[in-house]
Amino acid sequence: MPINLGELAQRFDCELIGDPGVHIETLGTLANAGSNALSFLASPAYKKQLPSTKAAAVVLRTDDASDAPCAALISNDPYACYARMAAVICPPTAYEPGVHASAAVASSADVANSAHIAANAVVEDNAFIGANTYVGPGAVVGPGCVVGDDCRILANVTLVRAVTTGDRCIFHSGSVIGADGFGNAMTSDGWLKVPQIGGVRIGSDVEIGSSTTVDCGAIDDTVIEDGVRLDNQIQIAHNVHIGEHTAMATGVAVAGSAHIGKRCMMAGMVGIAGHIEICDDVTVLGKAMVSKSIRQPGAYASMFPIEDARSWNRRVASFRRLDKLIGRVSELEKKNK
Amino acid sequence: MPINLGELAQRFDCELIGDPGVHIETLGTLANAGSNALSFLASPAYKKQLPSTKAAAVVLRTDDASDAPCAALISNDPYACYARMAAVICPPTAYEPGVHASAAVASSADVANSAHIAANAVVEDNAFIGANTYVGPGAVVGPGCVVGDDCRILANVTLVRAVTTGDRCIFHSGSVIGADGFGNAMTSDGWLKVPQIGGVRIGSDVEIGSSTTVDCGAIDDTVIEDGVRLDNQIQIAHNVHIGEHTAMATGVAVAGSAHIGKRCMMAGMVGIAGHIEICDDVTVLGKAMVSKSIRQPGAYASMFPIEDARSWNRRVASFRRLDKLIGRVSELEKKNK
Amino acid sequence: MPINLGELAQRFDCELIGDPGVHIETLGTLANAGSNALSFLASPAYKKQLPSTKAAAVVLRTDDASDAPCAALISNDPYACYARMAAVICPPTAYEPGVHASAAVASSADVANSAHIAANAVVEDNAFIGANTYVGPGAVVGPGCVVGDDCRILANVTLVRAVTTGDRCIFHSGSVIGADGFGNAMTSDGWLKVPQIGGVRIGSDVEIGSSTTVDCGAIDDTVIEDGVRLDNQIQIAHNVHIGEHTAMATGVAVAGSAHIGKRCMMAGMVGIAGHIEICDDVTVLGKAMVSKSIRQPGAYASMFPIEDARSWNRRVASFRRLDKLIGRVSELEKKNK
Repeated sequence: MPINLGELAQRFDCELIGDPGVHIETLGTLANAGSNALSFLASPAYKKQLPSTKAAAVVLRTDDASDAPCAALISNDPYACYARMAAVICPPTAYEPGVHASAAVASSADVANSAHIAANAVVEDNAFIGANTYVGPGAVVGPGCVVGDDCRILANVTLVRAVTTGDRCIFHSGSVIGADGFGNAMTSDGWLKVPQIGGVRIGSDVEIGSSTTVDCGAIDDTVIEDGVRLDNQIQIAHNVHIGEHTAMATGVAVAGSAHIGKRCMMAGMVGIAGHIEICDDVTVLGKAMVSKSIRQPGAYASMFPIEDARSWNRRVASFRRLDKLIGRVSELEKKNK
Repeated sequence: MPINLGELAQRFDCELIGDPGVHIETLGTLANAGSNALSFLASPAYKKQLPSTKAAAVVLRTDDASDAPCAALISNDPYACYARMAAVICPPTAYEPGVHASAAVASSADVANSAHIAANAVVEDNAFIGANTYVGPGAVVGPGCVVGDDCRILANVTLVRAVTTGDRCIFHSGSVIGADGFGNAMTSDGWLKVPQIGGVRIGSDVEIGSSTTVDCGAIDDTVIEDGVRLDNQIQIAHNVHIGEHTAMATGVAVAGSAHIGKRCMMAGMVGIAGHIEICDDVTVLGKAMVSKSIRQPGAYASMFPIEDARSWNRRVASFRRLDKLIGRVSELEKKNK
Repeated sequence: MPINLGELAQRFDCELIGDPGVHIETLGTLANAGSNALSFLASPAYKKQLPSTKAAAVVLRTDDASDAPCAALISNDPYACYARMAAVICPPTAYEPGVHASAAVASSADVANSAHIAANAVVEDNAFIGANTYVGPGAVVGPGCVVGDDCRILANVTLVRAVTTGDRCIFHSGSVIGADGFGNAMTSDGWLKVPQIGGVRIGSDVEIGSSTTVDCGAIDDTVIEDGVRLDNQIQIAHNVHIGEHTAMATGVAVAGSAHIGKRCMMAGMVGIAGHIEICDDVTVLGKAMVSKSIRQPGAYASMFPIEDARSWNRRVASFRRLDKLIGRVSELEKKNK
């Protein structure tokens, strides 16, 4: 939606340095923006691209304004400010209300008139779809699921059963919410399946990435609180509890009944053991393994960065000599007493 | 299905301490069970919740019975006993036989009369669907697949082609079985695809989690034996062989032609290299990397647990000084001879 | 497609030792091939299976020819040679042109007459499907996607939006291309979604595995160049750039804006941090973490292989004493000066 700089500055309460009449029609990176695009400068790494940008305007901090070769919108938090403006300039697609002829909606389902059910989507028995919610092509909303207002369930998402969501949630393609948890009892005849009868309770403003899986609870529900952000390829096992505004990057796996606090940040490929607690405001760095509860806010790690393969192999060999080395040092200490 | 305690005790051969006439209608955790619920106590970690439970009855070991504020069903293996009772109290959904009007079943496919093919499911050429098997909404059973009796292929599962299963298998949503393996030959013009013509042979009582992928064999089949349990987000490459009753937790990746024994347990995020053998009864702990064959039953590991990021960084720095440290100690030893 | 050895030898310019009239009808491994099958010997590990093979013919190197109990096709690169012959003997399924009655194709979409759109597939507004391209059952080609000629989009694949591909690309089941990147700005009210308006640009001859996810760019496009091969369960974040003929094994995760060169090989479960550069011809070994740019071609690693759990735990304990050990050695050195 085209908008001019004066309106943007006023609406988002920014100082504008430049012509308020300039029209903004799209978004652009500093390096590649066209003359009708809004860009932003948040990270110092991109500062060198500012002087040569072709953007119509750049959202940036006061200190950077003098280097802008174009209009500048001043903000203390340029990334968030840009995000808000971007949502006005390039709003999410709007969908016509209605159910596509090829969609299959159970007669016992309750779909808001303003909802959009796309081609070959399926809404099963006793499911509820809220106002303005979009159910994409091939998506399945299983029996008894309750989806709030203004949600987006993208193509080929599966809400298996007993999933309840708040409003404004987004489920990306291929995500699977509410499948059976991995509950097996060992017997002399092999594994015995333990019935998984809990559901998944999801707050409002939650976004869940592609191919991310969130299992239903074994008995009580799996819980994801308001504002949680999960990237792609994440696994949330049965009865996990994730506190408000916690974010997880790709490939994180959380084992059963782990309880994770608010405003935590898990970097990519972190593993979290079952039945542990992580307090609020914990950051875990990439590829680390959390095998015990964390009771102090702060940053945690357990990852070795790469080296060239030959030196790495030497290091691993040295590591295997460490036990003996400790003995050798003790021996020397005795001699030197 | 409601049942009273007397019937439960008799059917599963348990001692009952309490009123056999009490009706059980659902399941509950010790902490949250209602007065019509059956609960269980298996792990000592939950023992403290027993005295205050509101459950109608608890499955537990003799030693714990005196702390139960309600009826008790005595078992040496309370978790397995609970699982069996739970399957009676909350049986899996039963489906009416038939093919939904929106499903597409190829004329050459052979679908048992008692099978249920849900909305927008697809059964392709020459596929066979056994008695009482459920094919969920949006699921695809590809050409030449043979699915046994009493299986559950949940919503949006894909059996790509040439997948054969035994009876009572469960495939959770988003799992993909029988896609091409990753076979590429390097040439001077880049990678050349190697045709993948094998299938996937799956035994009975196998359960495969959401978004788990099992590739077809390059020439011979990929094989998963009876009773195997795979959690979500697992990758099984072409020509892997997994022995009976082996279980793998989330995020395990098994490379091509690995041969894994019976009753193995792989914890979350374990990696298993290609073309290796793992004998029966091996347990691999979380995040470990199996790069060589394992020929002795037992537990294996290679993971570092987290520490606070600052101490971890110091440790990594020390690790990099280890090579030199070994030299320094040798030097000291010379001096101290 | 049956073919005789003489034709194979001529077509692929191989020396044939044996009867050119022998008919080949299928493919087989050395161990299990039948008498109408072509097999190959590329890796020395399988050399011991050659003398007892029942294959009709084996593709192998000159040096191995004398051990073949059957016809031999001589090649310097038997694996690539076999791959080319295999594609003739077992060509990919051919599909009849046409749109299945249950597929939903938007009126604004442009589908080549020679394309095949399978049951319950969905092609959305303004999408373009090239000549001879196959869109499998349940697959969704989202608005504005442009798919080249001779591509295969398998069952339940999702091209979300704004995905452009070259020719001869293969997308395996469950892969999701073009979903929103993980763009979130922290605010005092929690995470704010940053609109993701870029697309995904994919070259020709690219193959993408099951459940692999490739996100659209935040503003500019995510780019995958010609000949790239991605295995299953891989995550490619927004604005990643992958150079020609790079291959990645299962479970690799690449964070946002990483730029990866040509002909790189990433083994399974490698993590690659955001905003870094990896030059051409880099190999990263399994489970390693690339947290900084790599500017020299070569092999890199950071993984510890398993040991039995008891010794591993001892090693971790020793590792934690390393800091102090360094101090103890310094102390000894002072005494021994």
